[in-house]
Amino acid sequence: MTLLARRPAIGITMGDPAGIGAEIVVKALADPAIRGLARFVIFGMNELLSYAADLAEIDVYWWRLPHVSDRAAFDLLHEVVVLDYDEFSMLGPAVHRPTREGGAASLRFLEDALAAVERPSGSPAALDGLVTAPICKASWQLAGCRFLGHTEMISQRTRSRRVSMMFVGPRLKVILATTHVPLMDLRNLLTIGRVFDPIELGHAACVRLGIEAPRIAVCGLNPHASEDGLFGDEERRVIRPAIEMAQHQGIDARGPFPADAVFRDALAGKYDLVVGMYHDQALIPVKLVDFDEAVNLTLGTPVVRTSPDHGTAFDIVGRNKADAGSMKAAIRLAVKMVSDAEREKGSPVAKAR
Amino acid sequence: MTLLARRPAIGITMGDPAGIGAEIVVKALADPAIRGLARFVIFGMNELLSYAADLAEIDVYWWRLPHVSDRAAFDLLHEVVVLDYDEFSMLGPAVHRPTREGGAASLRFLEDALAAVERPSGSPAALDGLVTAPICKASWQLAGCRFLGHTEMISQRTRSRRVSMMFVGPRLKVILATTHVPLMDLRNLLTIGRVFDPIELGHAACVRLGIEAPRIAVCGLNPHASEDGLFGDEERRVIRPAIEMAQHQGIDARGPFPADAVFRDALAGKYDLVVGMYHDQALIPVKLVDFDEAVNLTLGTPVVRTSPDHGTAFDIVGRNKADAGSMKAAIRLAVKMVSDAEREKGSPVAKAR
Repeated sequence: MTLLARRPAIGITMGDPAGIGAEIVVKALADPAIRGLARFVIFGMNELLSYAADLAEIDVYWWRLPHVSDRAAFDLLHEVVVLDYDEFSMLGPAVHRPTREGGAASLRFLEDALAAVERPSGSPAALDGLVTAPICKASWQLAGCRFLGHTEMISQRTRSRRVSMMFVGPRLKVILATTHVPLMDLRNLLTIGRVFDPIELGHAACVRLGIEAPRIAVCGLNPHASEDGLFGDEERRVIRPAIEMAQHQGIDARGPFPADAVFRDALAGKYDLVVGMYHDQALIPVKLVDFDEAVNLTLGTPVVRTSPDHGTAFDIVGRNKADAGSMKAAIRLAVKMVSDAEREKGSPVAKAR
Repeated sequence: MTLLARRPAIGITMGDPAGIGAEIVVKALADPAIRGLARFVIFGMNELLSYAADLAEIDVYWWRLPHVSDRAAFDLLHEVVVLDYDEFSMLGPAVHRPTREGGAASLRFLEDALAAVERPSGSPAALDGLVTAPICKASWQLAGCRFLGHTEMISQRTRSRRVSMMFVGPRLKVILATTHVPLMDLRNLLTIGRVFDPIELGHAACVRLGIEAPRIAVCGLNPHASEDGLFGDEERRVIRPAIEMAQHQGIDARGPFPADAVFRDALAGKYDLVVGMYHDQALIPVKLVDFDEAVNLTLGTPVVRTSPDHGTAFDIVGRNKADAGSMKAAIRLAVKMVSDAEREKGSPVAKAR
């Protein structure tokens, strides 16, 4: 074994109590290989976690603490601590739909976990990174929250201006220039900076993930990347200048390429990362080839945050049918990002694997 | 063998002389299983076809006629007739790039083939359907032609107002509401009719291909199909009304669905056809899962026309490296569409396979 001064501490939020969050968290950490990667603090509800463990015939392996107890308390030697928010448990395990209470609970888990990640590294109760189980947007809205999702909430909370959503799968890695916006708003949203940022952030993330000289392909916006302006000018006005900016910084960025061809080239190993201009352009291929295995990675904030690539799956809750594969992959990726970040800073946290 | 009053007659255009057209046509029809499906008339250049056959070590299996000879002449008993346009052959087999001459030649092949398809069925020199090898858009432009491609040229030529581009692969079938237009123009282009047309045309094509009650999924335009208007209103304003129109006609159309999930469902067999709102939305998944095997099918014109799902591939011309798989699939599909069409009309052409 390598000499570890301290294992990284990863916070896990349970997400919407009405979803499969409790089940996938319990199942993921039940795997000794996952549990050995770090210390874990789960922000959630002990009742639901125990219920999920019971259904899956998993012995309880965590240490429960009321979340109101001395915060420093969770800096214990326990591998897995559940900070229990039992005030939300009136919801019960039988509700599997968007609710105000579910929104309030999942928001609270996230807020407290973020506060812990924002504490200076090494201080008591500080977390190094965050893995978030799925929330329900409709529940957040019922609870009066206007954020569209984790990414938007975290970027606002950390006052981050250049935030990108990246998806890391075993076959494809993609990063998005825009996320949850009306497609037709791209006319105004797509600027040189908006295209440059994901190239630069994605490049840095790939390096952190161990790719020395990432080869980055950038998609065009229009069919066939507009065939030199035949239909659309964003390639010339916006995308090409952004690629050139990146190239001037020594980044191996190429394109703009026709989006219907570039993902096949990336699959064939020609590129390490594809930059998509909008949600579906990048997510259609990822969900086709890496479904259940892709991890969502938020870049551009001071917080390392990953999450599985699926939703609350209300339709299968409480039936012990949820697959924890994507959750496990999200935990592995968070540990890897955190460890590499700490190593870069010369901190004593060792590389995880 | 079934009793055939007459085998269907399929025209094949050789496409840009500088591309791989000659090679894939020669290779596809060299397969006896393909050649047995119909009678074929190739509009192209004998010199290039012979050269391709020579490289591939295929014995010449066709009957050459100068295209200026009596048109009726090609209504012969020969299985494969090459209508030779040797006036274009000053180009030579060594040029592999867009040229004015290549554009003029490929345009001429297409115009003459279209004229033959437009002749009343059964009349001498009439063709039942058309398979087109790839042209080069840049060559067409050099030749002064303003059409963006085959589809646009054929729809204008046949004065068809509702034309849709469909792709038929072994794993996915998709049809497009819009094709080669700037993505941001969809704001004005995407009307209820524009979304309804591909649903109806795609439904009819699926029925013709033997699917009795096609299950059709329609994509949303925005991320997550806008999550009920959270980001974008085209789903509510345009797409949903089009789906309802189709449903009122008894078509099993459903949606709008999030595009990053629907193709996976279609792959899993849940839908027979997916209607995409724009080029990349439909072509990214098709090219990922059905590359080299998808066939482009033009719907909404009086002409049955298919083509392989690739371009001129200037980079591999003359090296006997082109794969004729997509060309063979295009020929098979054209024969199938023609035979079913004729059968519907009560004509004596029998079903091909």
